[in-house]
Amino acid sequence: MEPLPTPTPAPDQPCCAPKGTAALGAEEAKRKALVFKALADPNRLRLLSIVRAEPSGESCVCDLTGPLELGQPTVSHHLKVLVDAGLLHREKRGTWAYYSLVPGALDDVAGILAQL
Amino acid sequence: MEPLPTPTPAPDQPCCAPKGTAALGAEEAKRKALVFKALADPNRLRLLSIVRAEPSGESCVCDLTGPLELGQPTVSHHLKVLVDAGLLHREKRGTWAYYSLVPGALDDVAGILAQL
Repeated sequence: MEPLPTPTPAPDQPCCAPKGTAALGAEEAKRKALVFKALADPNRLRLLSIVRAEPSGESCVCDLTGPLELGQPTVSHHLKVLVDAGLLHREKRGTWAYYSLVPGALDDVAGILAQL
Repeated sequence: MEPLPTPTPAPDQPCCAPKGTAALGAEEAKRKALVFKALADPNRLRLLSIVRAEPSGESCVCDLTGPLELGQPTVSHHLKVLVDAGLLHREKRGTWAYYSLVPGALDDVAGILAQL
């Protein structure tokens, strides 16, 4: 931070910003990229699509393997990525796990794009 | 409307959809995942952020290396990914290439999320 000549800029807003200074900081960008990593897979997009289309608002993992033509371990891996990214909520009931969209999560991702 | 009694389902729409059938087809999902792959990198998010913040609406590649603290070949690679994904427009003028946001491209990505 240059102390001269005067005004006192906010810590993240240098007074003489070089052209091209990133509006998005490195740490924030790293955090925001995580959710796009979760979305950057066709099977995960399809899983979100299936769960969203379910009238009950949730899908049993047992209903998710068939449409994707993938084994349950692979589907479970993709579901875990979506849960870890905050896009899906997982609830274990009896034998099966049930997945639902985290309310507002996809809107939040759209918000990231709007505020880039 | 199904022409009963002998319905002829579309190839990707079986007549008796099992619970959980993907609303999003495999090919469409593959295509849509590409743009999220482009966004799934912190440096690329920062590049979009810099270009968007530029009052002139475009950034010279020579202004993009400094803020990211990356070499020009790396920055050029990331910019190419963003151009290939349809997010950035590239125009060569003289020595330098200039990058601008493709109008509506980020809104289109938000639209993908809304229509999953």
